[in-house]
Amino acid sequence: MDKKTLNIFKIGGNVIDDSIRLKEFLMNFAAIEGAKILVHGGGKTATEMSAKLGIKSIFHNGRRITTQEELDVVAMVYAGLISKNMVAQLQANSCNAIGLCGADANCIEAVKRPAKPFDFGFAGDIVKVNDQQVQVFLNMGLSPVFNAIGHNNNGQLLNTNADTIAAELAKALSNQYHVNLNYCFEKNGVLSNVEDDNSAIPILDQKSYTTMIQEQSIHSGMLPKLENCFYALNHGVDNVRIGSDKHLSTGSDIHTKIVL
Amino acid sequence: MDKKTLNIFKIGGNVIDDSIRLKEFLMNFAAIEGAKILVHGGGKTATEMSAKLGIKSIFHNGRRITTQEELDVVAMVYAGLISKNMVAQLQANSCNAIGLCGADANCIEAVKRPAKPFDFGFAGDIVKVNDQQVQVFLNMGLSPVFNAIGHNNNGQLLNTNADTIAAELAKALSNQYHVNLNYCFEKNGVLSNVEDDNSAIPILDQKSYTTMIQEQSIHSGMLPKLENCFYALNHGVDNVRIGSDKHLSTGSDIHTKIVL
Repeated sequence: MDKKTLNIFKIGGNVIDDSIRLKEFLMNFAAIEGAKILVHGGGKTATEMSAKLGIKSIFHNGRRITTQEELDVVAMVYAGLISKNMVAQLQANSCNAIGLCGADANCIEAVKRPAKPFDFGFAGDIVKVNDQQVQVFLNMGLSPVFNAIGHNNNGQLLNTNADTIAAELAKALSNQYHVNLNYCFEKNGVLSNVEDDNSAIPILDQKSYTTMIQEQSIHSGMLPKLENCFYALNHGVDNVRIGSDKHLSTGSDIHTKIVL
Repeated sequence: MDKKTLNIFKIGGNVIDDSIRLKEFLMNFAAIEGAKILVHGGGKTATEMSAKLGIKSIFHNGRRITTQEELDVVAMVYAGLISKNMVAQLQANSCNAIGLCGADANCIEAVKRPAKPFDFGFAGDIVKVNDQQVQVFLNMGLSPVFNAIGHNNNGQLLNTNADTIAAELAKALSNQYHVNLNYCFEKNGVLSNVEDDNSAIPILDQKSYTTMIQEQSIHSGMLPKLENCFYALNHGVDNVRIGSDKHLSTGSDIHTKIVL
């Protein structure tokens, strides 16, 4: 039997923080037929909310150190403010969305990252995606909207990287679905010339990627994202694309397709 | 065919704000067999969070005037902070909980309350409970945890009274289930002597209620709660009880049973 297609989109702050752009993306996402999942972060909004509450967000190598106070803010901003407003907008576009964190229906289990070599606080690393439960939701015609929070099955929420959640969901569901994993960000793809957004490389394979790293012609912020892309491809995911929300959500061929 | 039993519990600030009490309640709730739903508010926490953000919460006749700023806080606190932490704790107690607002899977549709005679801002009145969707979740073995937020199916979240959500859920599911609706609050029930928490009236019927109102022997804060109780009973709900979270969640007979 042919596998059905599952489209997974991950969006970040550049879309979430721009209400007009977000509205357009959600309309496009809602119009995509068949099984689909949206994964979102919201780190910039969380940092702004922390500042309003007098909490100073601290980062190490670009990753948040999630104190208890920061975890509360992350839960509020990701699972409350951002998730529920997006779900309401998707419902308005006839997309039967449901906002989920990892604790909901035990969808995503994580463990607290070890405190050594560096203590990131309540940061989580995914140990299990409950793919059967997610599949049941998809079969019901629901479109899960996952925020970047996991749980440890012992009552503790954990701040979990949204790019990684998208990759792990894609991996876990690749047995049942032909999975297209789409990473949306502020550029049109991996650029051959970082100054020129029209220079998106159509196809990037692992060999070229390695060469680009050696030549230092790739932005350091792109590295973890691309690691997630290759991880997904190495674990059964069929298609992985990286590009702008606008192009990826409309099926335009302006993006970078990542291949092994 | 005999109807299955559905237990609905509504909890408020007196449980939510006391972490030890909440933990105990969630353990008891998790241990209840069969179909169950938890409904929660969190107004006091929302008011505290608003204050921290420099937003002054304004009330009219005890009900929040939900400005856009307040709606954002309510979404963060109810659907993020409170909901997801409770779901994680329920999961730790082997209860397969799922935190939902009304927009999720389009479970609860509401309309913005008319601005006249008084403008409560983004306050919602329930127009439809999607009982079929909720029943599907229950049949899957999931325990929905509903927070007090509805949506208008046009992209707008609405702050909706949690007592009313519990009553409307109970009403909507009473065709399919034998419904026990439990309102948990800070007292042991409707007290014959407001000074004495041991004076809970075992059974309160509509006639006695009317008499108590006439004699002004009932606390004014109890009136909307009791109106919801009688509304539920008048719309097919089998059992309605009011009392403390501790007694109601353990099946103790210390509570007030409301009857027609």
